[in-house]
Amino acid sequence: MKFEIMRDRLLDGLNNAMRAISSKTTIPILTGIKLDVTAEGLRLTGSDADITIQTFVKTEENGKQIINVDEPGSIVLQARMLHEIVRKLPTNEVEIEVTTGLQTIIRSGKSEFHLIGSDANEYPQLPEIANNEQFSIPSDLLKTVIRETVFAVSTSESRPVLTGVHWQTKEEQLVCVATDSHRLARRKVTVENVPVGQNVVIPGKSLNELNKILDDSTDLVNVALTSQQVLFKTKEVLFFSRLLEGNYPDTSRLIPDDYQTNVTINGKSLLQAIDRASLLAREDRNNVVRFETVGQNTVEISSNSPEIGKVKEEITVENLEGDELKISFSAKYMMDALKAIDGQDVMIQFTGTMKPFILRSIHDDAILQLILPVRTY
Amino acid sequence: MKFEIMRDRLLDGLNNAMRAISSKTTIPILTGIKLDVTAEGLRLTGSDADITIQTFVKTEENGKQIINVDEPGSIVLQARMLHEIVRKLPTNEVEIEVTTGLQTIIRSGKSEFHLIGSDANEYPQLPEIANNEQFSIPSDLLKTVIRETVFAVSTSESRPVLTGVHWQTKEEQLVCVATDSHRLARRKVTVENVPVGQNVVIPGKSLNELNKILDDSTDLVNVALTSQQVLFKTKEVLFFSRLLEGNYPDTSRLIPDDYQTNVTINGKSLLQAIDRASLLAREDRNNVVRFETVGQNTVEISSNSPEIGKVKEEITVENLEGDELKISFSAKYMMDALKAIDGQDVMIQFTGTMKPFILRSIHDDAILQLILPVRTY
Repeated sequence: MKFEIMRDRLLDGLNNAMRAISSKTTIPILTGIKLDVTAEGLRLTGSDADITIQTFVKTEENGKQIINVDEPGSIVLQARMLHEIVRKLPTNEVEIEVTTGLQTIIRSGKSEFHLIGSDANEYPQLPEIANNEQFSIPSDLLKTVIRETVFAVSTSESRPVLTGVHWQTKEEQLVCVATDSHRLARRKVTVENVPVGQNVVIPGKSLNELNKILDDSTDLVNVALTSQQVLFKTKEVLFFSRLLEGNYPDTSRLIPDDYQTNVTINGKSLLQAIDRASLLAREDRNNVVRFETVGQNTVEISSNSPEIGKVKEEITVENLEGDELKISFSAKYMMDALKAIDGQDVMIQFTGTMKPFILRSIHDDAILQLILPVRTY
Repeated sequence: MKFEIMRDRLLDGLNNAMRAISSKTTIPILTGIKLDVTAEGLRLTGSDADITIQTFVKTEENGKQIINVDEPGSIVLQARMLHEIVRKLPTNEVEIEVTTGLQTIIRSGKSEFHLIGSDANEYPQLPEIANNEQFSIPSDLLKTVIRETVFAVSTSESRPVLTGVHWQTKEEQLVCVATDSHRLARRKVTVENVPVGQNVVIPGKSLNELNKILDDSTDLVNVALTSQQVLFKTKEVLFFSRLLEGNYPDTSRLIPDDYQTNVTINGKSLLQAIDRASLLAREDRNNVVRFETVGQNTVEISSNSPEIGKVKEEITVENLEGDELKISFSAKYMMDALKAIDGQDVMIQFTGTMKPFILRSIHDDAILQLILPVRTY
């Protein structure tokens, strides 16, 4: 293997492929990045066994030579070291050559690195993804859907399936649900020509990593689902993730049908008031704040911590219908939900002090957040 | 105690006083900030027993009312909590009132916090600093002097006096020296009317904190030294630090008088080459690189790590005089020294493979860096 490549393009590719690599891996070869050079270009592969990221640098782009391939071939190089070296090389021209055995030389300017690589044949094979059962979604929309749901996955391994986000496809629609059994986030999104009846659970960690790689453009991301893997394909990156096994619980019956108290309130004011109230709530480690209707147009947020003090906040609401209410909930869950709804006016619908309540944007019915209260009264 | 204050000015003061506060303190009252309100303004005091920072917010500034004092008084409030609360208050008007006992109410807009304070009489007294034995130094110059020396202090507590920077005053001159016994940084700076014969060791930690508070202006900082304390006084802040006890070693005889090899080299190129070479050196955990003269105008930097590989860098020097040389040293110490000299052309003067060598800027004789080599040849 021998080729020359522009340093900045190699670095871009490495930056993406590096994201799949975990320092905690127990499989030694997965501390490496696989380089495959052909006449078409350089393919970089990084993996932690759960997530695999591939990037491709073409030999020529818009008539500009990016790579000059002297001899095709493959090698696995220690990822963190390769990344650091490429980041610090003195010129934008880099030559990479595998000489005897797995000896690899990296040259740039008057710098010369000799690294001992690993055999590319020992690198795990990628799963085959069939070409049917695919759909496309704009990159910025996919990022929004991830942001609005993934925070609600469980961080506990006691029910592994809850550490993922449930994706179900219906007629022209994708429904994404995450819950840790104390709160739930649901986002519905219209997707053209989506294959109906798909039903998978994607690990939250994979979606968080994918979110970092996606850009805020309207470029389409191709999504291919199989029974064990999902592949997200952008112009530059192939992102593979394994799926979680097990049946995702039926969450639809958690969502109440009728409500006794409806509050319409400015989401940003509420978020800031909860944030302040949680300063004292946090000290008690349970992080619970109280929410109480006062008359016809005010709610009061409060919390107290016997050793530190207490706090009281009043907010004038846009609209208040139904019964009087006193309820307590996790400040963190409420703030997460309000951030997902993103500062708009929100409608909060309560069914009583001990029943789950839901939040929606008044402008958009596609997103729903559900929170279970905490018993304190 | 009762007063109203502009939130942003209170926050500025807290930001500075907070820097002295350590979460690791074993003295409970030092988790708090002391507020003293008089007709003149609000004094905030934070301390970790080693460092004490005081800031003062005047009631009136340029004809603008900043504080309205209803009733003077003092209280100690939990520092981190107060800071978070003030940071998140909804309006720029804040009222702070101590009611019965140590109950303190903080009001802003429709937010109301009740905190339980501590008695200000239990807060440690500040040392008295006499008004003689003072001098002044521009803020930006003081920052430079700190930056060029403090990195070389020892991080080990085996010889506590080496964890500080030695400040000595001579005729119109301040000499600052730091060493961890493997390398040394010395900076001389001309200071008008400096009291001659002062000799103190200031903890490196204090200087690092001071550096964060000082701005890059040419405003004068007043420095008052006593036998146990140093006080740095700026327009807004009083910064007290205890001094280290014990005799600082005589370091002047460490610096060689004659040299066998003189190398003049671009500091930035050398820094980058060492940085790359240290990528492999670091893997071996000793972080040692080799430096070797090659012919009349080149030096070679190299390192190797048996399991990972090796690296070789060539640099064309500006000037090379004297004997051929092979020497090994810590990449970290060399990078620290080059960063302190700040990218200029540097002259490196060697006295042989096992003797300390020194670095100076070719433009400026005031700064000297000394490094002990490592035996590998």
